[in-house]
Amino acid sequence: MTANELPIGVFDSGVGGLTVAAALLEHLPAESILYLGDTARLPYGTKSPETVARYTRRNLDFLLGRGVKAVVVACNTASALALDRIEASVPVWGVVEPGASAAARVARGPIGVLATESTIRSGAYEAAIRRRRGDLEVIPQACPLFVPLVEEGWADDPITEEIARRYLEPLLDRGAEALVLGCTHYPVLKPVLQRVAGDAVSLVDSAETVAALVAVELAAAGLLRVTAPGGPRVELCVTDAGERFQRIADQILRDGAPPLEWVEV
Amino acid sequence: MTANELPIGVFDSGVGGLTVAAALLEHLPAESILYLGDTARLPYGTKSPETVARYTRRNLDFLLGRGVKAVVVACNTASALALDRIEASVPVWGVVEPGASAAARVARGPIGVLATESTIRSGAYEAAIRRRRGDLEVIPQACPLFVPLVEEGWADDPITEEIARRYLEPLLDRGAEALVLGCTHYPVLKPVLQRVAGDAVSLVDSAETVAALVAVELAAAGLLRVTAPGGPRVELCVTDAGERFQRIADQILRDGAPPLEWVEV
Repeated sequence: MTANELPIGVFDSGVGGLTVAAALLEHLPAESILYLGDTARLPYGTKSPETVARYTRRNLDFLLGRGVKAVVVACNTASALALDRIEASVPVWGVVEPGASAAARVARGPIGVLATESTIRSGAYEAAIRRRRGDLEVIPQACPLFVPLVEEGWADDPITEEIARRYLEPLLDRGAEALVLGCTHYPVLKPVLQRVAGDAVSLVDSAETVAALVAVELAAAGLLRVTAPGGPRVELCVTDAGERFQRIADQILRDGAPPLEWVEV
Repeated sequence: MTANELPIGVFDSGVGGLTVAAALLEHLPAESILYLGDTARLPYGTKSPETVARYTRRNLDFLLGRGVKAVVVACNTASALALDRIEASVPVWGVVEPGASAAARVARGPIGVLATESTIRSGAYEAAIRRRRGDLEVIPQACPLFVPLVEEGWADDPITEEIARRYLEPLLDRGAEALVLGCTHYPVLKPVLQRVAGDAVSLVDSAETVAALVAVELAAAGLLRVTAPGGPRVELCVTDAGERFQRIADQILRDGAPPLEWVEV
């Protein structure tokens, strides 16, 4: 197998990063994906930079050990906290820079950043947006209840709307015109968030931008695959088994999800 | 150091188990405690029995390696999922049996069990209560949002009350007369839960019962300490550093918390 034929590795703490995998499959119809969900240690969003960096290193080593030609860190917390500490023998992309880039493109006024506690504390989105648009105000907001609400299946519920209102009000009061969905779980909340924020506010999801960036840079590196694989295009590995993961994966991946492979990382 | 002089080991996935440690210190004024919070891998309540058992084994081995004369598994999920798979060279107690015992003592009608998803799925509380009171109906209710709400600091908030109402209503409709707080985070929610459930409903917290049980059984095993230690009575180890842990620990422990020691487990 030549390097070009190897899959693209993608990891997240859980199932959410599959939205990035799905976008990659759409942009790159000849590529295959090796996905790792570190479900035994999730969530990352409440943990320290040292711990998140250690888990990120292990996940990368797992993917490299299985053979991948590039890695997408689909977890915002890992992208924000660990990416600059990581060296690897293949190209590695995070989701913060592409997300910041998308936000800087659409916004004309203040940009709100919604993310986990650890991502917000890192200041990574703020720094990445300011590098592109020093003229725009960036307003960070940690939303620690969003992930458990999505996990509880209350994505479109009056209680979730009330909680979203509490988190978003300070940002809307300050005139936020775009809201970055800085966690792979948050796109599921788009209907509620759009309702609370109003139609004039753009919701920025990094999955599309990441996929577009990876397509361009893989091509530039001469690593694109030319012919599509015959077998299944997605392999799913998890560090803790879960029916819920399988169910949500089936919804996110257009062709359905393959059976999960349990791995120790 | 003789066996009697060794500390009692206590572990939980996070900071909540310190309520059990505090009860132990009150019941056993001459004992000292070695506490481990596995904060790098929390929460346990959403993870599979295999993963929780693996973490439980590692935590036990860490405590035994440091030297303890007995271990209290202060985490309900670990008690429910892993205790019967564990062998150790010292006495090990969980919190489910004492909690069930306390509930069986106070209830005359149906007993509601509030706990994490994994604890509820295990059926451990139901089985333990039925063994004592086969005549009483047991109504299990997973409350996955309670832990993140406590962590968010919204323990006494209208949103938390609304969520508690949603979780508790089916139990109250079926006439629950006692509610087991089957997770070490839940005692913090007592004011809200009592308000939603009404004063006629008893809230059962296992910390006191566990401490009383440990006192009796340590004495029976000839393992009680006779004279109090000169130095600090509590050592706190965590697998992920956290200011929040330190702050909450300071509130739970009557004499304040010592500095945290970061350990890899």
